Amino acid sequence: MSYFDAASAAPLHPVARQALTASLDEGWADPARLYREGRRARLLLDAAREAAAEAVGCRPDELVFTPSGTRAVHSGIAGALAGRRRAGHHLIVSAVEHSSVLHAAEAHHAGGGAVTEVAVDRTGAVSPSAYAEALRPDTALACLQSANHEVGTVQPVAEVAEACRAAGVPLLVDAAQSLGWGPVEGDWSLLAASAHKWGGPSGAGLLVVRKGVRFAPQGPRDERESGRAAGFENLPAIVAAAASLRAVRAEAAQESVRLRELTERIRARVPRLVPDVEVVGDPRRRLPGIVTFSCLYVDGETLLHELDRTGFSVSSGSSCTSSTLTPSHVLRAMGVLSEGNIRVSLPPGTREEDVERFLAVLPEVVAGVREKLGAPVPVREVVTRERDEALVVDALGRRCPIPVIELAKVIEDVPVGGTVRVLADDEAARLDIPAWCEMRGQEYVGEEPADRGSVYVVRRTG
Amino acid sequence: MSYFDAASAAPLHPVARQALTASLDEGWADPARLYREGRRARLLLDAAREAAAEAVGCRPDELVFTPSGTRAVHSGIAGALAGRRRAGHHLIVSAVEHSSVLHAAEAHHAGGGAVTEVAVDRTGAVSPSAYAEALRPDTALACLQSANHEVGTVQPVAEVAEACRAAGVPLLVDAAQSLGWGPVEGDWSLLAASAHKWGGPSGAGLLVVRKGVRFAPQGPRDERESGRAAGFENLPAIVAAAASLRAVRAEAAQESVRLRELTERIRARVPRLVPDVEVVGDPRRRLPGIVTFSCLYVDGETLLHELDRTGFSVSSGSSCTSSTLTPSHVLRAMGVLSEGNIRVSLPPGTREEDVERFLAVLPEVVAGVREKLGAPVPVREVVTRERDEALVVDALGRRCPIPVIELAKVIEDVPVGGTVRVLADDEAARLDIPAWCEMRGQEYVGEEPADRGSVYVVRRTG
Repeated sequence: MSYFDAASAAPLHPVARQALTASLDEGWADPARLYREGRRARLLLDAAREAAAEAVGCRPDELVFTPSGTRAVHSGIAGALAGRRRAGHHLIVSAVEHSSVLHAAEAHHAGGGAVTEVAVDRTGAVSPSAYAEALRPDTALACLQSANHEVGTVQPVAEVAEACRAAGVPLLVDAAQSLGWGPVEGDWSLLAASAHKWGGPSGAGLLVVRKGVRFAPQGPRDERESGRAAGFENLPAIVAAAASLRAVRAEAAQESVRLRELTERIRARVPRLVPDVEVVGDPRRRLPGIVTFSCLYVDGETLLHELDRTGFSVSSGSSCTSSTLTPSHVLRAMGVLSEGNIRVSLPPGTREEDVERFLAVLPEVVAGVREKLGAPVPVREVVTRERDEALVVDALGRRCPIPVIELAKVIEDVPVGGTVRVLADDEAARLDIPAWCEMRGQEYVGEEPADRGSVYVVRRTG
Repeated sequence: MSYFDAASAAPLHPVARQALTASLDEGWADPARLYREGRRARLLLDAAREAAAEAVGCRPDELVFTPSGTRAVHSGIAGALAGRRRAGHHLIVSAVEHSSVLHAAEAHHAGGGAVTEVAVDRTGAVSPSAYAEALRPDTALACLQSANHEVGTVQPVAEVAEACRAAGVPLLVDAAQSLGWGPVEGDWSLLAASAHKWGGPSGAGLLVVRKGVRFAPQGPRDERESGRAAGFENLPAIVAAAASLRAVRAEAAQESVRLRELTERIRARVPRLVPDVEVVGDPRRRLPGIVTFSCLYVDGETLLHELDRTGFSVSSGSSCTSSTLTPSHVLRAMGVLSEGNIRVSLPPGTREEDVERFLAVLPEVVAGVREKLGAPVPVREVVTRERDEALVVDALGRRCPIPVIELAKVIEDVPVGGTVRVLADDEAARLDIPAWCEMRGQEYVGEEPADRGSVYVVRRTG
C-alpha cells in the first residue's frame, strides 16, 4: 500500500505518536487548576506553546491552540472581521483558498458583508498587484493561503502582505499546507494551521494573532486559550502537535529536496507515459510533495478506485466523483482541465520505489478506464448535421467525461475552419471543453444557452 | 497522591487509552476519502457513532462528535435557537448551569435575545413547576443540566422535559456530569456531553439532536458531522470516547454504589470532624462521586494549597481564589456558604483508604488555615460603637474570609436582640454573611448601601 494523499492528512509522525501517548499520562488534567496534576498540565501546555511559537516565528502569547485547522480559520476570520468592524465589512480572499476560508467568506457575505475573490493565473497563483487592486478603504481583512492544497502552487505571501500592510489591512495566512516545511515569510498579521497536515495528530490546529492586530473573538466567551478557542484543551494532541512540528522542521531541508525530486519525476514522466494528460500547477514555485495532473477522457472516481485496487491512495479534484457534481473550485479558477484529475501528495519518507511503481502502473490504469468508458459509446447516432452544416454532438444527460470523449471523436469529421457544437448539461463540460481545446490547440469559440444545458462551440484549427 | 477532582477531568480510563493508541494507526486518514485508509477511518467513525448512540439512547444519525463538551453546548444552543427563530427568541436556563451554557445564554442576550434564569432551592435543584412557569409563547429553547457539576445535585430532567414537550419547546440537556453513569431519562430533545468527564480523552464531545427538532447549524458551513461540527474529525479521540463510555457504563452499577458509600462517609463525617462546616447539595438525589462542603473562616485557595501539599487534589468554588473574586455562581444561586468551599469528586476506582486518609488529614488542615488567618487579626481595633450603640465591624479592604471571621468574633459582644453592622467591600461577603447567619441561627437583617462597599446588618437572636 502506498499512501499518496498527505495533503488531506499525513500519517502520524513517530514523534507525534510518542509525545501523544506520553502525555496521556501527564496531560489529562485541567491546566487551569492549582493542584499538581493541573500544574503539570499547565507546564506541558506552556512548553508546547513556546515550541510551536518558535516554529511559526511569533511570540508564545500570540499563539493559541484550536481543535482543528478549520476552527482556526473560522475563528481567525470571524475575530479579525469583528475586530475591524469600524474599518468596514469588506473581505478579500483568493479564488483558490481552502473550503474553510471560502465557507467563512460565504458566511460573512450571508451576514451582509462584502467579499472580493481575487483570481489566479493558470498556475494557480495570485498576483500581488491583483490583491493591491482589491484593497478598498472599507477592507477589514484579506486572506491568502501560503500554498495551494490541490496543486501545490506557492503564493506570493510576502508581497501580498506588504501591499496589505501599506493599506493598513491585516492579512490572514492559511498556512495549513506549508507550515511543516518552514515558517511563512513576510509581514502577515494572522496565521492558521492544522497539525494533521504536518504529521501531527488530528484534534489540534493553531491560530496566531500578531500583537497590535484588532481581534474580537466571536461566539460565547470562554476563559481558555486567551478567549480565542473555547473548550477544554486537548493537551495530548497539543503536545504532539508541537513536538511533531519541531521534528518535521528538523527533517524539512533534506526531505524537501528528496520529495521535490520525486514529484519532479512524476511531473516530467506522466505526460510521456500517458497520452492526453495535463500537469497543472506552477512547475517551480511549488510545495515539495504535491503534483497534480488531469487525464482526458477519464472519470476521476473510477480512476481513484482503480488506483486504490493497485495499491495507491490518491485524491481527485475531478468533477466526476460521487460526492459532488461541481468541479474543484481550484481547477476551475485556474481554468485547467478537471476531468480525470489526480493529486499525488507524498508524505515525508515516501520511498523512491513506490513512486516508480506508481509510474509503472498509471499508464495501464488510465488506458483501462478509457477503454471502459470509450467502448460503449456510439458515435454516429449522436451526431447530426444541421445549422449550416455545423456538426452537433448531443451529450445531454451524459456525465463527465463523456461530452469531451464525444467531442474528441467527432473533431476529425470537422473540416479545418469549421465548427462543432457540443450540447451538454453536465457542469463539468463548462470547464473541460475549453481546457480540452487549449490542450489540443483547437479554438474554443464560446458557450451559448440552450433549452436544456448549454451549447459549447469549438472551431477546428488544425 | 489522591486525585479527587474527577468532575473537572477524569483520568483516562484504560479502555480509552487502549482504543486511542490503537486508532492512532488505523484512524488518522480522512474518513471522507474513498481509498482504503479513508474507508477504514469511516468504519471506525461509524462504529464509534453507533456505540455512543446506543449508550445515549438515540439513533446514530442523531449524534455528532464535537471537539469538546463546551463546543457541543455552544453549537447545540446556537443551532436550536436559530432553528426555532420563528417561534421567538426566548431562552430558559437554570441558574446553576455550567459556564458554557451560561456564556451561550449571555451571547444570546447580547445579540438581542431574552433569557430567563430559573432559580434553584438550597440543595441546588430546580423545580419542574418553575420551568413550566418560565415557558412563554416565544420560548425557543430551554436548557437544563442532568446533574450539577459543583454540588452533584441531580435535576428533575424528565419532569422538566415533560413540561417543555407539552409547550412544544425543545429541552437541551447538558449531560456532562452524568452520562458515564447512565442514559438521561425523559423526553429531552437535545443533549450535550464531554468525554473527558467520563474517563474518555480530551478532544471529544457529543451533541445529540433528536429527529424532528428544528436545528440550523451556525457559523460557516462544513460538510463533516452532518454540518454540525466543523473541522477534521479527531478520530482517535472519538473512538476512545465511545469505547470508554461503553466501558464505564459496564462498571457503573457497581462503582456507583461504592463511590456513593465513600461520599456518604465524607458527608456524614466532615461535619463531625471539622467545626463550622456546611455540607451542601441534595443528600439523596445526587451523583455518586461528588460531595461539597464549605468551611467557615477559611480561605479556599489556601485550603486547596494545603490539601495539595498533603497529597489531595480537589477543587473549590470558593470566592477566595486567585483567579476570580466572584463566588461560584452555583453556590450563590443556592444561597449557601461559599467561603472555604471544597468539592471532592472521586474518580471511579478511588480507594477507600485514600478517602479515610483525607478524612484524617482534613481537620488539621482546616485548623491550620484558620489559625493562620485568625491569629493576626486585631479584634478591638476594628470595633467601634456608634449609631444607637450598634456594633460596627469595619472590614473594608479585607478579603474573604476576614469579614466573616470579624463578625464571628464580635457576635458575643452583642446583646441578644441587638445588631451588629459589618462594613465590607469584598463581594463574597454578600453571600457568606447571610450564609453564616443561617448556619449560626442568627438573623440576617439585610444589606445597606455605603460610601464604599456595603453594610450587612445582623441581629443576635441567641
